[in-house]
Amino acid sequence: MVADTLRGRFITLEGGEGVGKSTLQMALATRLRDMGIEVVTTREPGGTPLAERIRELALRPPEDDAWTPMAEALLMNAARSDHLDKLIRPALAKGQWVISDRFSDSTRVYQSVKGGVSQEILLQIEASVIAETRPDLTLVLDAPKAATDARRTGRGAATDAFESRPDAFHEAVRSAFQALAQTDPGRCHLIDAGETAEQVAEAAWREIEPLLSAQRASAP
Amino acid sequence: MVADTLRGRFITLEGGEGVGKSTLQMALATRLRDMGIEVVTTREPGGTPLAERIRELALRPPEDDAWTPMAEALLMNAARSDHLDKLIRPALAKGQWVISDRFSDSTRVYQSVKGGVSQEILLQIEASVIAETRPDLTLVLDAPKAATDARRTGRGAATDAFESRPDAFHEAVRSAFQALAQTDPGRCHLIDAGETAEQVAEAAWREIEPLLSAQRASAP
Repeated sequence: MVADTLRGRFITLEGGEGVGKSTLQMALATRLRDMGIEVVTTREPGGTPLAERIRELALRPPEDDAWTPMAEALLMNAARSDHLDKLIRPALAKGQWVISDRFSDSTRVYQSVKGGVSQEILLQIEASVIAETRPDLTLVLDAPKAATDARRTGRGAATDAFESRPDAFHEAVRSAFQALAQTDPGRCHLIDAGETAEQVAEAAWREIEPLLSAQRASAP
Repeated sequence: MVADTLRGRFITLEGGEGVGKSTLQMALATRLRDMGIEVVTTREPGGTPLAERIRELALRPPEDDAWTPMAEALLMNAARSDHLDKLIRPALAKGQWVISDRFSDSTRVYQSVKGGVSQEILLQIEASVIAETRPDLTLVLDAPKAATDARRTGRGAATDAFESRPDAFHEAVRSAFQALAQTDPGRCHLIDAGETAEQVAEAAWREIEPLLSAQRASAP
């Protein structure tokens, strides 16, 4: 297929806070670039100037106010629509690979944990926004909260609205990501994020290799 | 019906730019308050602190960037969700009347004129956000563009992203509002906005009177 040969690959990294998504993103981008592949690294919510404006508004409402689950889901999808149209789709069309730190699975998981919006309407909105631009591969980083707490403390990271939630919330998010990986095993692969950064990158690379050979096999 | 006796009435004012919606809003609120009815006047996009933040972002993106129709539709509905949950529904539940300068019909009309999003998905999103909180009455102010230009120049109003569009756009918006009023004649009433402010208020009041008598008739 000509279109598939030219089109880059779209990889998303998912999982709870502090599981090492951005570290893995850099490791994978470096390794792909070493092979001569053009890679665009990005994140959600955000990734474009307008989507980053929505990110700021969505993640940091004024202290005495909060987004309802429906408003938050709509904001995330508004940001995603801009991100897809102005960054992800143009890059893939040029044959570049895109690695996004979070994508639509995060909206699904966080909304399902927080509740307040029917899954049916969430999936309808998601489908209209994403259309044909589904990830080729989604790596779900999975680790118990203790491991991620240690990592966050180690890097002295500031906490935001998501990260300051209680333990039960983190465990619910972890379970929801695990369940998601099980329901879509063709696209989603669970990676043990409790290992060292090198081991995580190695495990991730094993899932990426089939995408590379598929692209090589279909090249002229 | 007890719920209907206690619940306030929800009136929305729709129409293109400069047709006199905010002038009419003030006239109607004053007349209702004179009768001892509590009235909340509000607007869309906006009406709550968070929705006003979305309004600013939606209507005034940076000069070198623009929202796609899908992103804009999602932003408008995110703002509406906050507006409904934090202002409109609580006010109606307390028996107050709410008069909103624009509501969901504006999103329908502007998106249909600009295109780029299927009407089906727009209606699905609208239905999930609005749920049971449909307006009791929608007054659609209708006037040729020449009349509204004169009014805007007269008040020395600044133009925003909507108002700086060309004539053909305004005519398309006007036609779409006219069509909308025809498809939902039980709720929507077209008002000739080319008349004086007093005549417009009088015509609007004739549509409001049935809501008053329904409320009086159901009172104990």
